[in-house]
Amino acid sequence: MTPYEIISRKRDRKELSREQIEFLINGVTDQSIPDYQLAAWLMAVYLNGMNPSEKHFLTQAMLHSGEVIDLKEIPGIKVDKHSTGGVGDKVSIILAPIVAAAGVSVPMISGRGLGHTGGTLDKLQSIPGFKVDYNTAEYKKIIAETGVCLIGQTKDIAPADKKIYALRDVTATVQSIPLISASIMSKKLAEGIDALVLDVKTGHGAFMQEYAQAIELAKSLIEIGEAAGKQTVAYITNMNQPLGNTVGNWLEVKECIDCLQGNGPDDLMEVTHQLCGAMIWLGKKAESIEQGVEISQKMISSGKAWDKFLQIVERQQGSVEMVKNPQNYPRAKHQLEIKSEKDGYLSAINSLEIGLASVGLGAGRLKWEDNIDPRAGIILNRKQGAVIKKNDTIMTLYSDNMKALNETSVSLLEKSIQITHQKPDPEPLIITYLDKNNLS
Amino acid sequence: MTPYEIISRKRDRKELSREQIEFLINGVTDQSIPDYQLAAWLMAVYLNGMNPSEKHFLTQAMLHSGEVIDLKEIPGIKVDKHSTGGVGDKVSIILAPIVAAAGVSVPMISGRGLGHTGGTLDKLQSIPGFKVDYNTAEYKKIIAETGVCLIGQTKDIAPADKKIYALRDVTATVQSIPLISASIMSKKLAEGIDALVLDVKTGHGAFMQEYAQAIELAKSLIEIGEAAGKQTVAYITNMNQPLGNTVGNWLEVKECIDCLQGNGPDDLMEVTHQLCGAMIWLGKKAESIEQGVEISQKMISSGKAWDKFLQIVERQQGSVEMVKNPQNYPRAKHQLEIKSEKDGYLSAINSLEIGLASVGLGAGRLKWEDNIDPRAGIILNRKQGAVIKKNDTIMTLYSDNMKALNETSVSLLEKSIQITHQKPDPEPLIITYLDKNNLS
Repeated sequence: MTPYEIISRKRDRKELSREQIEFLINGVTDQSIPDYQLAAWLMAVYLNGMNPSEKHFLTQAMLHSGEVIDLKEIPGIKVDKHSTGGVGDKVSIILAPIVAAAGVSVPMISGRGLGHTGGTLDKLQSIPGFKVDYNTAEYKKIIAETGVCLIGQTKDIAPADKKIYALRDVTATVQSIPLISASIMSKKLAEGIDALVLDVKTGHGAFMQEYAQAIELAKSLIEIGEAAGKQTVAYITNMNQPLGNTVGNWLEVKECIDCLQGNGPDDLMEVTHQLCGAMIWLGKKAESIEQGVEISQKMISSGKAWDKFLQIVERQQGSVEMVKNPQNYPRAKHQLEIKSEKDGYLSAINSLEIGLASVGLGAGRLKWEDNIDPRAGIILNRKQGAVIKKNDTIMTLYSDNMKALNETSVSLLEKSIQITHQKPDPEPLIITYLDKNNLS
Repeated sequence: MTPYEIISRKRDRKELSREQIEFLINGVTDQSIPDYQLAAWLMAVYLNGMNPSEKHFLTQAMLHSGEVIDLKEIPGIKVDKHSTGGVGDKVSIILAPIVAAAGVSVPMISGRGLGHTGGTLDKLQSIPGFKVDYNTAEYKKIIAETGVCLIGQTKDIAPADKKIYALRDVTATVQSIPLISASIMSKKLAEGIDALVLDVKTGHGAFMQEYAQAIELAKSLIEIGEAAGKQTVAYITNMNQPLGNTVGNWLEVKECIDCLQGNGPDDLMEVTHQLCGAMIWLGKKAESIEQGVEISQKMISSGKAWDKFLQIVERQQGSVEMVKNPQNYPRAKHQLEIKSEKDGYLSAINSLEIGLASVGLGAGRLKWEDNIDPRAGIILNRKQGAVIKKNDTIMTLYSDNMKALNETSVSLLEKSIQITHQKPDPEPLIITYLDKNNLS
């Protein structure tokens, strides 16, 4: 077997066997296969695709390129959620305590933000002291104790994915459903989960802007999860406008605190409860997703989710004092309100533009080396569909950088906001549900 | 402009501009673009193709990555021939003296053999002393003096092509018509030609086994040549069986000597005269290709081509004594005759198998580092269509390696020869003629 043979088979749209894919991925991990051969293969995969078996073999090979955490010693069904990423998507931080409070263990390995989308790790680390790097033994211990652990990807998890991802990034092969699927699932399957709920975002601010692509990705992820013996379900949710009312790391954590205390915005809570409901059902603590949603709501109203959140913060060495008193958190030096220039309906808030603006304010990264400011970001004072009067504040920007603040406000007003005479049609937030019985 | 942008445009089937292609090829030449980005781009080109303008720009960029020889100071129209390579294809060695004898200058840069196809340089170098490495000034001087110069590619000619070819070889992107075309034409246009005749081989032993692919390649080469302002015509010729009666370097030179002395086999002379006729016509020494063919035949019958050959050998420091007395050339240590096991018609001699067998005997290379034995090879005692009696000698193998000789004879008898009761239909040797007026 040679890399050449594997490249040429994929080039010619011939199916690759488990052995061929393993050979290739082992060669990536042990660096015996040069980057230029992998790059040619990635472009062939991008253009010719992969069938379900190939995707399964690729995911398994990438998964087994590193450590696969075994959580069998922890009783019960372990369930995680994965979102393909969006703007203002802070669901994990509300969802993890809800689901853990409902008695389902949540082993959660999250990522950092890059480009217009934020990352759960960055948000969590805006809590003073919050630690996200634990070794496997500590990770297991924390899950056993609190029912949940929120960490970052260690270097031992799917090392082949890291190399492949870095190469995809410079060879224009990122937007490939088989490669995205294998990348996501190889990391999720390494966590020690028994089941998985996927939140595949679609719309302006999503990785998969087109609905058809989102559906294709969701199906691909479900197929891979089920082939690995993990029950996997997916929701396609709307990312045309940001989720909730905040974008920016601490601003979002503060919004999560409001949510956990029962004061969350409707859109954010609707998505959170739906995903929690599915997780609680998959974790066999509810007989249906609907019942799971009811339990999720009860975890909020009873205060149990909030208590669980405090327990998580404490266990992961974050400042309980600060999350209990978020008003004490330092503020960005400057703030600037964007006001409407006319009366009408707020018919669109483009989440891609909002996401990019938040990066400009210091809340995100364009490159991995960039520093982020946890205090920077945007509060959306109004959301899509709101009645707006001239001079109403539509959003408020926070940054230490006055120049960025001024520039951003101009471009946001031009590009991200649309105010119309006609009332916009409401858009569904949760668009579709998919599972293995519902794939075509 | 970034390599990423150029990769993604080709990936998305968007047309590349002259500037984009130049940027990429300049980056290849000055090594600012890493191999992995070039590899991804090559696979995208392989799978998505290139339109005529893109092929023209690519060829020009590769051509101008190195030296472009200017032969304007030499009077008359300079014409070369390029063959896509075959088994037993020794046409250049007969054609160059014929065309030069007819008064048309032939600037000819040839290659070495790799795999089952031979190379003109290796054949020429089987003549003791024959020199093929001259610098540009010497190359021009020799053409001015003798009307022809037969050399190898210098490192200054199309350096981008060398890098790209080496990468294509390991990324399964060799068999791409745009990439093949740009590679061939960037080297041919560097020679200083005014016009070009192409011999695109099709059949078992050819690079383009399928007729449709050969036509596509011929059209692509003509388009590029004409876009560069060089009159370009092409013949598609049959490579199902080897051309002429010999395969192997000195054996082929000896056959060329026979041809130049008027004793060549019919198939080899038919192809040679046709290509010479077109070159003489393009060189304006005949009013039609037909008249060019007549002149070509006269160059043989008058002995002028043979005299020109002796002049070439002498000028390029080869042994005139040896080409005048080829019987004095050392022989391979062993020879072995393959005899027919039955009566019938020789209905097929698979040129791919013959070419591979000749490599096994020592006449060719599988890797660039391999040594070749100029004495090794195969004489085809019979050709396709011959009436065969049991025990007739079909071919004779020459090698110093007795083991290779025995193994090769067994596999050749099994795979390369077909003897049938029914007389095979004769195959056309020269299948099609194409030029710019005849491209669809």
